[in-house]
Amino acid sequence: MSTTAATAEIAQYCLQTAEAARAASYELASLDAEVKNTWLRHAAAALIAASDAIIAENKKDLAAAADYGLSDAAIDRLRLDPDRIASIASGLEEIAALPDPVGEVIEGHTRPGGLQILKRRVPLGVVFFIYESRPNVTADAAGICVKSGNAVILRGGKEAIHSSQAIVNVLSQSAEQCGVPKNAVQLVSTTDRQAVGEFLALGELIDVTIPRGGEGLIRRVAAEATMPVIKHFDGNCHVYVDQHADIAMAVEIIENAKCQRMGVCNACESLLVHEAIAAEALPKIAQRLSERGIEIRADQRAIRWIENAIPATDEDWSTEYLGPTISVAIVDSPQAAAEHINRYGSHHTDAIVTNDLRTAERFTSLVDSAAVMVNASTRFNDGSVFGLGAEIGISTDKFHARGPCGLRELTTYKYIVRGDGHVRT
Amino acid sequence: MSTTAATAEIAQYCLQTAEAARAASYELASLDAEVKNTWLRHAAAALIAASDAIIAENKKDLAAAADYGLSDAAIDRLRLDPDRIASIASGLEEIAALPDPVGEVIEGHTRPGGLQILKRRVPLGVVFFIYESRPNVTADAAGICVKSGNAVILRGGKEAIHSSQAIVNVLSQSAEQCGVPKNAVQLVSTTDRQAVGEFLALGELIDVTIPRGGEGLIRRVAAEATMPVIKHFDGNCHVYVDQHADIAMAVEIIENAKCQRMGVCNACESLLVHEAIAAEALPKIAQRLSERGIEIRADQRAIRWIENAIPATDEDWSTEYLGPTISVAIVDSPQAAAEHINRYGSHHTDAIVTNDLRTAERFTSLVDSAAVMVNASTRFNDGSVFGLGAEIGISTDKFHARGPCGLRELTTYKYIVRGDGHVRT
Repeated sequence: MSTTAATAEIAQYCLQTAEAARAASYELASLDAEVKNTWLRHAAAALIAASDAIIAENKKDLAAAADYGLSDAAIDRLRLDPDRIASIASGLEEIAALPDPVGEVIEGHTRPGGLQILKRRVPLGVVFFIYESRPNVTADAAGICVKSGNAVILRGGKEAIHSSQAIVNVLSQSAEQCGVPKNAVQLVSTTDRQAVGEFLALGELIDVTIPRGGEGLIRRVAAEATMPVIKHFDGNCHVYVDQHADIAMAVEIIENAKCQRMGVCNACESLLVHEAIAAEALPKIAQRLSERGIEIRADQRAIRWIENAIPATDEDWSTEYLGPTISVAIVDSPQAAAEHINRYGSHHTDAIVTNDLRTAERFTSLVDSAAVMVNASTRFNDGSVFGLGAEIGISTDKFHARGPCGLRELTTYKYIVRGDGHVRT
Repeated sequence: MSTTAATAEIAQYCLQTAEAARAASYELASLDAEVKNTWLRHAAAALIAASDAIIAENKKDLAAAADYGLSDAAIDRLRLDPDRIASIASGLEEIAALPDPVGEVIEGHTRPGGLQILKRRVPLGVVFFIYESRPNVTADAAGICVKSGNAVILRGGKEAIHSSQAIVNVLSQSAEQCGVPKNAVQLVSTTDRQAVGEFLALGELIDVTIPRGGEGLIRRVAAEATMPVIKHFDGNCHVYVDQHADIAMAVEIIENAKCQRMGVCNACESLLVHEAIAAEALPKIAQRLSERGIEIRADQRAIRWIENAIPATDEDWSTEYLGPTISVAIVDSPQAAAEHINRYGSHHTDAIVTNDLRTAERFTSLVDSAAVMVNASTRFNDGSVFGLGAEIGISTDKFHARGPCGLRELTTYKYIVRGDGHVRT
């Protein structure tokens, strides 16, 4: 086959996949919650029953992992065993147990003249989800999208293509048996990069794209997409230690925010300390961080209070280390802290430690981030920790969905207006 | 000045304007509702007091209108007189009377362990609003944006630049006197087309762009924008007359939806009739439409029931006439009607006329539009008719804002999390 023919074939395949998803989305929108929940539970059991077959396919991916140059950690995340498949299945059962967001009446009222206005929650429609090579994400994303009434086109990493295909096969067979449209969940079968571009051009058929991966991927998707994108960037999260902070509490929160898990988006990357408390607080904080092997990069005012600190450069304030490094600066007020955070941060998660009520109110009001924590670790910004259930990502956008992005964030609404022959005069 | 220097100067001007708006937005976010309302009422009075000066500036625009090739209707919309200025002022007073959406607690709960989660409504930040040459829109948009806590950059049509500048001068002077940041409302002072492209590139400083104008403008903005866009396309709205319709009611609703105001986005453009009722209903509907001078373009099945109908082509189903023409097709079921609407419509406003409850439920569920009307005219899709107050447009998007786009649709939310030294384990 010539290259041109192959290109045309991929374009055709993507169009057909998106059209099938669109058709399925209209069926899904009015599907009873119990049908969707039955499917989720059925699929969970079917995944466990198919463990051997899934693991056999997973072995193909593992065999190819070295060719893709995957790290040991990545290979470990790729590996499936009966326990991990059981965990994927229980994820689907958890989604089944969540309330169905579709059909919720968000608000409603009757107008003078008798026109009844209802604002009802409905699915977005078709979700294009791009993710990396963790096969568990395949089932999670499918479950979240379908439970919220959306058809999903899954574009997984090529490194997990056999595992993901095996999982999707089980989900699709379950769907057919449970009355869920077969094309509610589709995995992109080609690993050709062209396919991503083709789907991103289909803004008339796809309602939202959600890329989960490195910054480069997200920027490419946002630039090319003809439909809205829910972006999920890493976080440059701050802890601000106020003049009125409980220093012992600050030490615990900073240690937790920085060290509990370093490679995640809600880990702390930068520390701001009020000048009035710096002399007392900074040595204690620095000592604890040093004990945990954290390198400290401090500004000119902070460095005198910290043993072995390295002078920070301007670049440090914008850097998300995702590792054992933290930047530290001294500020003169909660307002200055908020300004620093709004300027250099990524609007993800930022915390204040203070016992002063007015300062806490002011800080939460001024900081322009998806989550602002008062006397709590930044690590708490997470859908399940918030009690919102399974999430498909944490949005760093302000538009439509901000913060944890779960079932409800994959919906929109429509107005339903009931009259009795009403006309406008 | 060389062209390059002029280009650089415009780029610099746009960047400074956006940075000033961003700075103002942080102040606005925590501004007391009463300050904003005081400004709106003060500005209303100041506009009336400045009527003579505004009308003098308006005369400059009117004098240039012929050079811009404006139609008589457009020139009429451009014209300001004391009554129209009073009407602009009362628009601001109406916005003052609306509840402030900022600070609303959307939901909240306490997690096991005591962490308190609050989801609080906050402004989007900076709005870039692009609109045509109606000077009243200048004040409206400024009022809606600032009341919802956003700074706004107004890019009005060049045909109204003197009028808009005079209005914005009054609004800005009022702002300074009332404690609202001076740069909360800025009018783009250059009419150079380059400026639009410059602002659309400033996605880091501007949170949303709202273009109001022709389809070409909206498509250009959506393609170029590096930030989210709330799109406001025209509507290809349908009325479906069901088998169980009250025919007399259908005639009234169709006449109203088609004829009450033809050039607007919620006017009816296409009529679908159930085959079982076509023989009885279509002649009556056609007669009424003919009396109103409407040209009917009918499909092969419908045409036999309609005197003087013209055969419809495929193109008609997608056409928004915005004038005295309507397309008519016969369908075999409510489901077929919904499929036609989802395929050819613009997801704006669509209506069913029926007395059958189950059919009404099914139709409202299947039709994928911002508003679905039951036994009511499509013309009701409007923020003030819905009781939502002033609107900056009617969104044809599903994402973030759908349908009437008022104060609340110009907000987002943040999570505020309160602990007492909570760390994640």
